[in-house]
Amino acid sequence: MATVPLIEYEDAPAEVQAVFDDIMKTRNLKRVNNFWKALANHPPTLERTWESLKEVMGEGALDPLVKELVYLAVSATNACEYCVHSHTAAARKLGATDAMIGELLAVAGMANQTNALVNGYQVPVDEGFKVAP
Amino acid sequence: MATVPLIEYEDAPAEVQAVFDDIMKTRNLKRVNNFWKALANHPPTLERTWESLKEVMGEGALDPLVKELVYLAVSATNACEYCVHSHTAAARKLGATDAMIGELLAVAGMANQTNALVNGYQVPVDEGFKVAP
Amino acid sequence: MATVPLIEYEDAPAEVQAVFDDIMKTRNLKRVNNFWKALANHPPTLERTWESLKEVMGEGALDPLVKELVYLAVSATNACEYCVHSHTAAARKLGATDAMIGELLAVAGMANQTNALVNGYQVPVDEGFKVAP
Amino acid sequence: MATVPLIEYEDAPAEVQAVFDDIMKTRNLKRVNNFWKALANHPPTLERTWESLKEVMGEGALDPLVKELVYLAVSATNACEYCVHSHTAAARKLGATDAMIGELLAVAGMANQTNALVNGYQVPVDEGFKVAP
Amino acid sequence: MATVPLIEYEDAPAEVQAVFDDIMKTRNLKRVNNFWKALANHPPTLERTWESLKEVMGEGALDPLVKELVYLAVSATNACEYCVHSHTAAARKLGATDAMIGELLAVAGMANQTNALVNGYQVPVDEGFKVAP
Amino acid sequence: MATVPLIEYEDAPAEVQAVFDDIMKTRNLKRVNNFWKALANHPPTLERTWESLKEVMGEGALDPLVKELVYLAVSATNACEYCVHSHTAAARKLGATDAMIGELLAVAGMANQTNALVNGYQVPVDEGFKVAP
Repeated sequence: MATVPLIEYEDAPAEVQAVFDDIMKTRNLKRVNNFWKALANHPPTLERTWESLKEVMGEGALDPLVKELVYLAVSATNACEYCVHSHTAAARKLGATDAMIGELLAVAGMANQTNALVNGYQVPVDEGFKVAP
Repeated sequence: MATVPLIEYEDAPAEVQAVFDDIMKTRNLKRVNNFWKALANHPPTLERTWESLKEVMGEGALDPLVKELVYLAVSATNACEYCVHSHTAAARKLGATDAMIGELLAVAGMANQTNALVNGYQVPVDEGFKVAP
Repeated sequence: MATVPLIEYEDAPAEVQAVFDDIMKTRNLKRVNNFWKALANHPPTLERTWESLKEVMGEGALDPLVKELVYLAVSATNACEYCVHSHTAAARKLGATDAMIGELLAVAGMANQTNALVNGYQVPVDEGFKVAP
Repeated sequence: MATVPLIEYEDAPAEVQAVFDDIMKTRNLKRVNNFWKALANHPPTLERTWESLKEVMGEGALDPLVKELVYLAVSATNACEYCVHSHTAAARKLGATDAMIGELLAVAGMANQTNALVNGYQVPVDEGFKVAP
Repeated sequence: MATVPLIEYEDAPAEVQAVFDDIMKTRNLKRVNNFWKALANHPPTLERTWESLKEVMGEGALDPLVKELVYLAVSATNACEYCVHSHTAAARKLGATDAMIGELLAVAGMANQTNALVNGYQVPVDEGFKVAP
Repeated sequence: MATVPLIEYEDAPAEVQAVFDDIMKTRNLKRVNNFWKALANHPPTLERTWESLKEVMGEGALDPLVKELVYLAVSATNACEYCVHSHTAAARKLGATDAMIGELLAVAGMANQTNALVNGYQVPVDEGFKVAP
């Protein structure tokens, strides 16, 4: 359960409804997910987070599906249960197969493993990897 | 500085040299990076980690470049300095542009931000996201 | 569910009851929260944790409400569900408004985002920030 | 060393210079810190991050100094060396004393400790802490 | 609930059944835990993870019980609910007492606390701790 | 470099010198490490942290060497460079061999990997693992 009430569209002030409308239109949804209903408790955070996500997650040098997979990998690393669920769903909607999700989590798993090994041995950075400031 | 000496090829036992040889051949390198020289202090970990990485990071349902970008996103999340350097270099070798790395880190940044928001509000998982066990 | 039983006051040894008594008296509670009932499985940890928390969270150079908000920000970062719930409740008891909690989580979110960006770009520390050892 | 070059004002495109100008004016600085010079490698991230930070870190229901202290606590939790340095400096500029920083890190330390204890015992959330969705 | 279905033995392909058989035989179990049923959605990850765990967690320079306790400490640090439950159970099966688990979590708690203090103060590494590369 | 000056014994107030004396006597050292010199900027944190560590890390149901290894595993997970160095040194002083440290980091690596896999698949806890509250 949330630490704040989830704000439904009908109970929301106009500024929140405007953001909800844009989310539903952009993502072709009939209602917004719980994440947005929770953020609606603090309208400036709702609006800023939505504007940022809309800009970051769209088409660009990286494919939107790749971006959802990256989001999932980070969320698994951070133990964010809700985020894992929502970004797995989003990735599947964009065409992610079981094999893609399987490989993605395998990579995330190996990254977490070798991050710990590197930090545990405190491996010094190879000179060849460095970029001059 | 490392907490263990870095084992150079010349000083390594045969089982370590065999792994180093396979790394250099597979990745077309003249010498292995410091990560492998550190793992060589524990040969079973060296061999297991290399065999796992070779299997996980190769061609599959996901592109090797996508995998390197995911690795970078996780490493940035975990504050692994060495890993950020080595996987940025690996991603560039596979063709990552400045725009791709810029977008990748923007996604990783947003994921870390919304993970904290979700955990801070303890947003309950939408019923529609769940998969029956 | 816990991985250990929760120890109720009635079933607790005298050394645990003494700590429970001090918690209830200091915080003006009728019974202790589940956290303390779990720690009671290891009395030295119960006592040490309570003594430390009592010292750290009280009035000082920082306001107790500020301390609860900091606690909440760290707990959200670490994905500690219980801690988010208990420190949100504690902050509200000390007067935290919806706007304060909204801003607090917005700051925690931005911190997690820029931490990932900084680690992803491995930004070198500005000379002006450093303090001589 | 960074994984990207640091972009100096003189070498920056006009859109980056405009953001740098606003940072220097808002914060009363003669030049921007390395963080912004690194983000300048991806102008949309530079602009979005600055606009977000400007909105989040200003005066509101919470004091700007409290916000810097929260930022420092999260950065210490995430092992972000640069961020610890820059937000310690920012907090001191806003009046943080040694005692305040000492108490802040003591709270952050206790939060990280009890987060691990709670997660290690998997303490169930008290009914009284929950908010209806 | 999982983001993938849990694959039961009866519904699994032969390659998965072979791994399940080896897990049950090695650990003297009548059926495998949910972790393996989830990994069975991606057979290469199932097989690689099992082979690695079997090698790493067995008898060696460290006692298997010590290894389970270390696993528990890391899982508590990472807020992995499932892992905390499964490795607490595994540790108890190998003889862990309440006192051992209590001390283990006390150590993990102190480590998380002092990690945050060290990162918050950015304590420089003592010369005497360093190993020449 | 630290964000606070390191306090040397000669420059420390009496309450700090008393803690330094106890550290040096208990651990048979000629001078305290940088960690303590940094904490000395906030004497209550110095004293509380030392008293807690002295109690937690001593002989008990777990061996002091096992405790140092657990500390190292957590520190590697949290990317605490200083802590990795200091607890590797402490473990070696208590008799840790290269094989022990190699196995320890292998376990920590696997734990971080499977934590991410479990969180990525959101594996539900097996009924058999649960303890009644």
